[in-house]
Amino acid sequence: MASEFRYRHRIEFAETDMAGIVHFSNYFRLMERTEHEFLRSLGLSVHADIDGRLVSWPRARAECSYEAPLTFEDEVEVLLRVRGKTRKSITYEFQFFGPHSRRVARGSITVVCATIDPQTRRMTSIPIPDAIGEKIETAPAEAEDP
Amino acid sequence: MASEFRYRHRIEFAETDMAGIVHFSNYFRLMERTEHEFLRSLGLSVHADIDGRLVSWPRARAECSYEAPLTFEDEVEVLLRVRGKTRKSITYEFQFFGPHSRRVARGSITVVCATIDPQTRRMTSIPIPDAIGEKIETAPAEAEDP
Amino acid sequence: MASEFRYRHRIEFAETDMAGIVHFSNYFRLMERTEHEFLRSLGLSVHADIDGRLVSWPRARAECSYEAPLTFEDEVEVLLRVRGKTRKSITYEFQFFGPHSRRVARGSITVVCATIDPQTRRMTSIPIPDAIGEKIETAPAEAEDP
Amino acid sequence: MASEFRYRHRIEFAETDMAGIVHFSNYFRLMERTEHEFLRSLGLSVHADIDGRLVSWPRARAECSYEAPLTFEDEVEVLLRVRGKTRKSITYEFQFFGPHSRRVARGSITVVCATIDPQTRRMTSIPIPDAIGEKIETAPAEAEDP
Repeated sequence: MASEFRYRHRIEFAETDMAGIVHFSNYFRLMERTEHEFLRSLGLSVHADIDGRLVSWPRARAECSYEAPLTFEDEVEVLLRVRGKTRKSITYEFQFFGPHSRRVARGSITVVCATIDPQTRRMTSIPIPDAIGEKIETAPAEAEDP
Repeated sequence: MASEFRYRHRIEFAETDMAGIVHFSNYFRLMERTEHEFLRSLGLSVHADIDGRLVSWPRARAECSYEAPLTFEDEVEVLLRVRGKTRKSITYEFQFFGPHSRRVARGSITVVCATIDPQTRRMTSIPIPDAIGEKIETAPAEAEDP
Repeated sequence: MASEFRYRHRIEFAETDMAGIVHFSNYFRLMERTEHEFLRSLGLSVHADIDGRLVSWPRARAECSYEAPLTFEDEVEVLLRVRGKTRKSITYEFQFFGPHSRRVARGSITVVCATIDPQTRRMTSIPIPDAIGEKIETAPAEAEDP
Repeated sequence: MASEFRYRHRIEFAETDMAGIVHFSNYFRLMERTEHEFLRSLGLSVHADIDGRLVSWPRARAECSYEAPLTFEDEVEVLLRVRGKTRKSITYEFQFFGPHSRRVARGSITVVCATIDPQTRRMTSIPIPDAIGEKIETAPAEAEDP
């Protein structure tokens, strides 16, 4: 059972904008990448065949608060914590730490477990399969922010 | 004084992902584009020289709730409403309407007025200049969601 | 039969990078968008069911030469010309015109007609269906650059 | 003196499109990232203050040929080779190797050495500074493709 994960990334040129900082939309891509690496660390994938069904995790909600900018070549550490788990959904919290381990942003994403029909691409929410649910648990309340 | 704006967009191929729908991060880009078109409709720019200073609008917070997916070539209308205005910040609310005028997502972005030092790229928050503030007002409470 | 198309676009904030100009990879997205609008103007789609098969156009080759930078809020016109058409492929040429109608870039994309298996996502090249091929023709040699 | 570099990357969800494969524009971002890691491995940066001037490397030309698709979670190795070096420019060649070390794409980028005026963002091409030029050399002719 895992409830926490850390992912390191160096800011790329293409992630910046003309203000000289990381474009705000890219924090969401970085949160998602951290989520996917977390799943991968558990032997799971965000988009996989499970018992003959294509199971994916469409996003229900996403948010981010920006506390300080990130710039080109900054090393950033993203700390993921599982903050909620229901029958069909998981809420991840993310904290971004930049140079000197200073927190620069904080966000969350809520994902819903769903099957995708390969022909129509239609999504239907489903209970989280046991093979996935038994590997992910909510972080203890004492796992508070630094 | 303006408090509302509508922007139309047709979903592009590059905005989709392998799940066959618009990637969730692209809703934030589309909110931003709507904000910029709103400013442009008022003769303003999100990144402009004002009285010899480079004035920009870094994001303090952004969020989105996803209600139904958007797919390639869908026509989407984004409805912007000014939901809050303080001395130094503006909060925009966005609603996304897809095919058959069905609402498919809803979000908000809070931006802070700031100057950027052209040499160091450092940002400093400032009171919203009058030339901008006098053109933007909070939407009336009765401007409720459809 | 069509061999030429023009698409207008205003440069967005998210298309710029910290050098203050449009990131070079975004010219390829803009070429693709122009291609898709061209197909749409002919009643076609780049990704469509034709006679029960999912027909798409994977890229075989893409290139771009950059002559002058584009910056935020520039209005750009992209001129597409069909430069080649074989049994299974089409080559589009693109010219980018920025402020004052100055040419700022030039590129090309070669696409191959293919079916996608909805289950495996595997692509197989096919002869261009008549319903598509009869609407697109190579630009006359005299359609030279301005 | 270096003329070759290898960069490994795992394909991210956000890099795919609705055809289920990596969007063709993302190969250019991956080429650029490899170039930047190459410079970084030499103690250089693609965007740096050198003797009080902001030196950057705008792209003059970019191209890519696609031989086989890449899909989500594929591990890809990008092999960079310096293929040309003039007084003011460098041409990098890139080969992409996917699963089973199969080559899936091949491209090149030509970059020009330039200074950026911090006020106007105007770029002016300059001879490659010695501190950079003495670290980068053209790959020997015998460094042929596998």
